Amino acid sequence: MTRVGVCLSGCGVRDGAEIHEAVLTLLALDQAGAEIICCAPDIEHEVVNHLTGEPEPGQRRNVLVESARIARGKIRNLAELHASDLDALIFPGGYGAAKNLCTFATQGPECTVNPEVERIVGEMLDARKPIGAICIAPAMLARILGRRGVNAKLTIGNEADTAKAIEKMGVQHVECPCTSFVVDEQHRVVSTPAYMLGKGPAQVFEGIQQLVREVLRLARA
Amino acid sequence: MTRVGVCLSGCGVRDGAEIHEAVLTLLALDQAGAEIICCAPDIEHEVVNHLTGEPEPGQRRNVLVESARIARGKIRNLAELHASDLDALIFPGGYGAAKNLCTFATQGPECTVNPEVERIVGEMLDARKPIGAICIAPAMLARILGRRGVNAKLTIGNEADTAKAIEKMGVQHVECPCTSFVVDEQHRVVSTPAYMLGKGPAQVFEGIQQLVREVLRLARA
Repeated sequence: MTRVGVCLSGCGVRDGAEIHEAVLTLLALDQAGAEIICCAPDIEHEVVNHLTGEPEPGQRRNVLVESARIARGKIRNLAELHASDLDALIFPGGYGAAKNLCTFATQGPECTVNPEVERIVGEMLDARKPIGAICIAPAMLARILGRRGVNAKLTIGNEADTAKAIEKMGVQHVECPCTSFVVDEQHRVVSTPAYMLGKGPAQVFEGIQQLVREVLRLARA
Repeated sequence: MTRVGVCLSGCGVRDGAEIHEAVLTLLALDQAGAEIICCAPDIEHEVVNHLTGEPEPGQRRNVLVESARIARGKIRNLAELHASDLDALIFPGGYGAAKNLCTFATQGPECTVNPEVERIVGEMLDARKPIGAICIAPAMLARILGRRGVNAKLTIGNEADTAKAIEKMGVQHVECPCTSFVVDEQHRVVSTPAYMLGKGPAQVFEGIQQLVREVLRLARA
């Protein structure tokens, strides 16, 4: 069985992993017969009230503990996971990918990446194992790739400012509808815009299902 | 467009709505071209740490606010929703359905149902509009149906004790695999065991997709 890591960043689009994107990634992987290994960093995050859209000042939750909600308790601390445990790694989107896994949401192209995320992505790249990035997650990946001089093709949606920001980090932005994906065969990176453009779960699932198939093709090749 | 309410009970299998079941219900509805109206009661709930599986003593969250994570902020207070706003209503599972929408988890067949949940279910039954119940949610529905003398057919999985408990409330339990569903044509109630039996999202989606198709067939008939 192909072992695929799914790196979560909390539980909820505004302060964690986008829940639809995360679950639809798990669905596509399970439908394709892959072994799923959910993981998340053991760090705190700020809380946003998803009913009002407003931050809850002073409230903190833990990314690993909240991600465990999506994983139904079956999740590993990212710090204990290595590329040798995986054949591929996928990052769903949500603000958590841009606020908890890195600081892109506040610092843009000057962002820093969580050290455990940077480590495992580096290990995957070194081992030439494929990486999938969904929605805003390519921004985080762009920072790591750019710093390594890897000028990979990535999607990010169609906002000019966001596209400019990821190109500034040293990668190539490719426009793509949310029902499709972009693969960089050379660097073994696959991405899809998902809710950067998508209007609902059916559209988003089309792109994610194709991303998952492509990641598995690369992992099994 | 067929308007389908999805009544959530929080965000996480152990203290709220089962996230996979909720998202896969939204996916199936969106794929079928239905209009989705997420809703949840505005009440507090106890918190369970999904990494350890242990309760977090003293912590409380709000069912409507946490459900908004699954609904991406697009959710209505159940108290403001009426059967006239809907053509059908679906309840995903998770402990939230048995702890927040009713007290089945602690009181079994003697449970009480949240008054707003009991009201809207009663309105749907009076209007002969179909209701779908997933996983453990049929236990909550059984209590309402039983008290109204409606001896409907429902699934609940294959645990003898749980099956006995729902029959004690005055409905008929029907065994059914998680990849299928049971419809009670007369009472316009559809159910599927989902994670009462399912091993992963692909299996669970098979049952939920069929439940959604059946609920929509009844709503459109």
